[in-house]
Amino acid sequence: MSQVTYESLLVNDPLTGYDDAKKYAEFVPKLEAYREKLINSIDPEYAIVLPKPIEELYADQFNAIKYLYDEKLLSEEELAITNSSGTDLAKKIASGELKSVTVYKAFAKRGTICHQLTNCALEIFTDEGLERAEYLDKYYEQNGTTVGPFHGLPISLKEHLFYKNKVCHGCFVGNIEDVSEVHGVTTQILENLGAVFYIRTNQPQTLMHLCSDNNYIGCTRNPYNLGLSPGGSSSGEGALVSFGGSVAGVGTDIGGSIRAPAAFSGCFGLRPSTKRISVRGGSALDAGQESVIGVAGPMTRSVDDIDMWMKHYINDGKPWLLDEQVINMPWKEVAPPKPSEFTVAIMYDNDLLKTTPPIARGLKETAAKLENAGVKIVEFKPIKSKLAYDVVHQMYTADGNIGTKACFQKSGEPIVRLTKNYLNYGKGSKGLTVTENRELNDIRNELRQEYTEFLVKNDIDFIISPTYANVAPKPKEIYNWSYTSLFNILDFPTLVFQTGLFQDPKVDKWDDSFKDYKFRSPSEELELTSYDPKEFVGAPIGLQLSGKRYTDEDVVAAGKTIVDILGVNLLK
Amino acid sequence: MSQVTYESLLVNDPLTGYDDAKKYAEFVPKLEAYREKLINSIDPEYAIVLPKPIEELYADQFNAIKYLYDEKLLSEEELAITNSSGTDLAKKIASGELKSVTVYKAFAKRGTICHQLTNCALEIFTDEGLERAEYLDKYYEQNGTTVGPFHGLPISLKEHLFYKNKVCHGCFVGNIEDVSEVHGVTTQILENLGAVFYIRTNQPQTLMHLCSDNNYIGCTRNPYNLGLSPGGSSSGEGALVSFGGSVAGVGTDIGGSIRAPAAFSGCFGLRPSTKRISVRGGSALDAGQESVIGVAGPMTRSVDDIDMWMKHYINDGKPWLLDEQVINMPWKEVAPPKPSEFTVAIMYDNDLLKTTPPIARGLKETAAKLENAGVKIVEFKPIKSKLAYDVVHQMYTADGNIGTKACFQKSGEPIVRLTKNYLNYGKGSKGLTVTENRELNDIRNELRQEYTEFLVKNDIDFIISPTYANVAPKPKEIYNWSYTSLFNILDFPTLVFQTGLFQDPKVDKWDDSFKDYKFRSPSEELELTSYDPKEFVGAPIGLQLSGKRYTDEDVVAAGKTIVDILGVNLLK
Repeated sequence: MSQVTYESLLVNDPLTGYDDAKKYAEFVPKLEAYREKLINSIDPEYAIVLPKPIEELYADQFNAIKYLYDEKLLSEEELAITNSSGTDLAKKIASGELKSVTVYKAFAKRGTICHQLTNCALEIFTDEGLERAEYLDKYYEQNGTTVGPFHGLPISLKEHLFYKNKVCHGCFVGNIEDVSEVHGVTTQILENLGAVFYIRTNQPQTLMHLCSDNNYIGCTRNPYNLGLSPGGSSSGEGALVSFGGSVAGVGTDIGGSIRAPAAFSGCFGLRPSTKRISVRGGSALDAGQESVIGVAGPMTRSVDDIDMWMKHYINDGKPWLLDEQVINMPWKEVAPPKPSEFTVAIMYDNDLLKTTPPIARGLKETAAKLENAGVKIVEFKPIKSKLAYDVVHQMYTADGNIGTKACFQKSGEPIVRLTKNYLNYGKGSKGLTVTENRELNDIRNELRQEYTEFLVKNDIDFIISPTYANVAPKPKEIYNWSYTSLFNILDFPTLVFQTGLFQDPKVDKWDDSFKDYKFRSPSEELELTSYDPKEFVGAPIGLQLSGKRYTDEDVVAAGKTIVDILGVNLLK
Repeated sequence: MSQVTYESLLVNDPLTGYDDAKKYAEFVPKLEAYREKLINSIDPEYAIVLPKPIEELYADQFNAIKYLYDEKLLSEEELAITNSSGTDLAKKIASGELKSVTVYKAFAKRGTICHQLTNCALEIFTDEGLERAEYLDKYYEQNGTTVGPFHGLPISLKEHLFYKNKVCHGCFVGNIEDVSEVHGVTTQILENLGAVFYIRTNQPQTLMHLCSDNNYIGCTRNPYNLGLSPGGSSSGEGALVSFGGSVAGVGTDIGGSIRAPAAFSGCFGLRPSTKRISVRGGSALDAGQESVIGVAGPMTRSVDDIDMWMKHYINDGKPWLLDEQVINMPWKEVAPPKPSEFTVAIMYDNDLLKTTPPIARGLKETAAKLENAGVKIVEFKPIKSKLAYDVVHQMYTADGNIGTKACFQKSGEPIVRLTKNYLNYGKGSKGLTVTENRELNDIRNELRQEYTEFLVKNDIDFIISPTYANVAPKPKEIYNWSYTSLFNILDFPTLVFQTGLFQDPKVDKWDDSFKDYKFRSPSEELELTSYDPKEFVGAPIGLQLSGKRYTDEDVVAAGKTIVDILGVNLLK
């Protein structure tokens, strides 16, 4: 067992005196009403009766996806629809073969069941979704054409993205009455292109955990193993998309928040290069923070759908006309490269955090399969990964947590476990001066330069790396973001892909040498000692694929080739 | 006369106790040796005998360009070569019609004369330039092809850009022995593409004046009127390029430093959108400062050459492979639009600084000519220009001038007049906290959003505005950057173009109403009361043309159409 405790990591910001029980008492009835509304929003037309009390399913490491299939919770038609790619659905709707309403109802049912099992939603509005789908059918009928390339596709949204006339709280209790007057730009673009919205999904307090705990509805669960976390901070998207409750989800990522839930929950997710997808209009605390910039990106069940989403969002949505932050840079068509046409460097270890047996196996088997298929494989020795991790930590809390604490003070809400972990990153409450912050920016630029030069000089096209030391963690037990945050500080576009492998407690055991392993940090000790093979049954093994800045199209195209080699198909 | 003084503006940073005569005494001999070396580097093969002592020419408002033609200082062949566009020269060299050495010598002569008259250079190395040109001719002879699209083109460089094995001081005396081991990325790319270097040009102390004063060689002078400033901070580039001493110059711009010298000295200059041209490798103090980002860009005597420079630099130079900061975004071919195909909004006044009579005339006549030609012209009412100016001022000095002062302390050098003006911008020595800096970044983003939305909603393609209240100012007398810095904070690509008009003391007089004009600020009073028509004879009238972020190609293409309508041709 670990000799270190989570508490021992909390030295940079004691975070005492922020909970305020008296003030919070005013908010408790509002939270209860919020939860009540969520429960009442579950449409009986789509809902199931749970086989057991939910806490028992958690304890059973219940596989919700297997249950969906085994119990035939969907009709054959519903299953066929919800297991279609977005590209296929859009075509069938555009040709009149499928109605938007038919498509919508199938997804609303699958999504509703997902929420019942995983607690993925903060808000469900299936009535509005139905109205929208009906409108789209009527439009099609009257005009003989679609409103856009996403006509009739159910797309899910992480809650903190502004949604017109709905509360947008970002999981701060103090924001529980904050109604947005407008859609965020990305929501607006998706709507302009024809999307149907019916669900807004869960995320952690502060949005800064790779998990999902908060004072609204607590943790979301992993659809492949309800005993585990779906990852975070786009937790609800991870669970919902992997379960098949929407054609595509929209997540956001400043330290791993698209990639952790995609990898852990079992789908694909793209962290695009900064400034290609709009993040304008959302409840988040990073306004004006430009040292490490948050991005939005798609989560789907196929790489083709990642490509389709990016292509239409950018080329048809023209986000630069609605948000000056987005670069006027069309999405290029890039054909999937042949295996022999690219070189992949594999990062087996980042010098900070050893991988657990399933991840080590996933890397090894993936490398072998790619090499067998003709891909040139080399090993990647991480460059200054400790420096990168130290710097990104300091950037997250550069303001001495002033902004976050001000949000806590509005409600006096309790600060949950992993929020404390995050707020102790870097210099915690001490924060930085402008000069220190500039120095870090400069170090960051030099890191980007070193990685870029390394790739260019060695003719390496892509890096494959773990998303995290482990598969999906237990809820509220994930502290170290070093594998994901590296690509935030580098701003390298990164696709999380599924290997088609899953944790197997019989295979994925520590070998004997592990008992003599010398941990390189308390953080590593804390992470690794939590891996007990029998507690992670069936968790998906997802990895990261990264390329140089602004080569998003190439990363996605290579992702198609890789998934093809690995024989992964989540739409069946 | 003005009721306010320059000194009255210096309230935010008293800047006392930084000059250190004792320490500086150690540097004086080094400075003298530096100046001696510069004088000795003037090649007698290219030099002229000045018609009068230089101070008398200053007092005479001597027109150096007129003198070049009137006195036939160049042979007909030299004149024909140095009055060719870069595009034509490159073609003739590539076809074997012209030798690199022939081209080089003509420019070296014209540039040397320019330096004698305007004090534009910090370093001249005509011997190395000749060697390089000879090498290129030999290469061509042996290979039957050029090394790249800039084969044999003399290109000048602002001094602070790193140059391999040469001192790069950025006009801080304390850096007088700082030799760079490598070229900056942009220097390297230009060399890779075939450029010939022989001159590095003057700039002000700190690089943060729209003029050129420093403790190395003092001010550069305006080639059209030696009594005036060439603008700054790319002062030497402005004078040299306008005089015809290089095919293209490379300037840098964080508040107007490409545009002011282009407008004042009489050439064209592009401030591109950020992150298209590399600024990696240079002696500057903005490392890690990302609130308002400096850019590099070309200065030339034709818009076609701006286009050619950008196209080859980006598409053939592939700067993103050498500098991770540069966006992988090819330069698009955009045909010059027909006059009827675009709408221009004219900003006659920015609500802060009234224009002097020549600039008011330049705007009016330009608008009339464009409208006559079929361009749709509307008036642009500036949006929150005071806020923009306040915010950008605070951004410049956000670190409380710590970085700059540390540089001064190395040598104890005297702080020159306009450096004090700059260091008193914003909160001066007080600086900002990280939280305040983030708030300003957020305000900046909202300003960009408002301007972008305004242009999109009103179908306005471009904005034409003054570069400054006046034509070229008297040396050391320009305090207010509000017309140029607006486009730095907005990050709008901005081309300075010549109107073909020049200040005329008989025409460009204040009208009677000016005596009753109520100044809107002490800064405005200080600027406007310095305009006495008879002291600005023959100064060029250049204006700014701006477009939305990352529409650089469209701005340059429209610039061609506009210059065509105005009938401007500087290559004759």
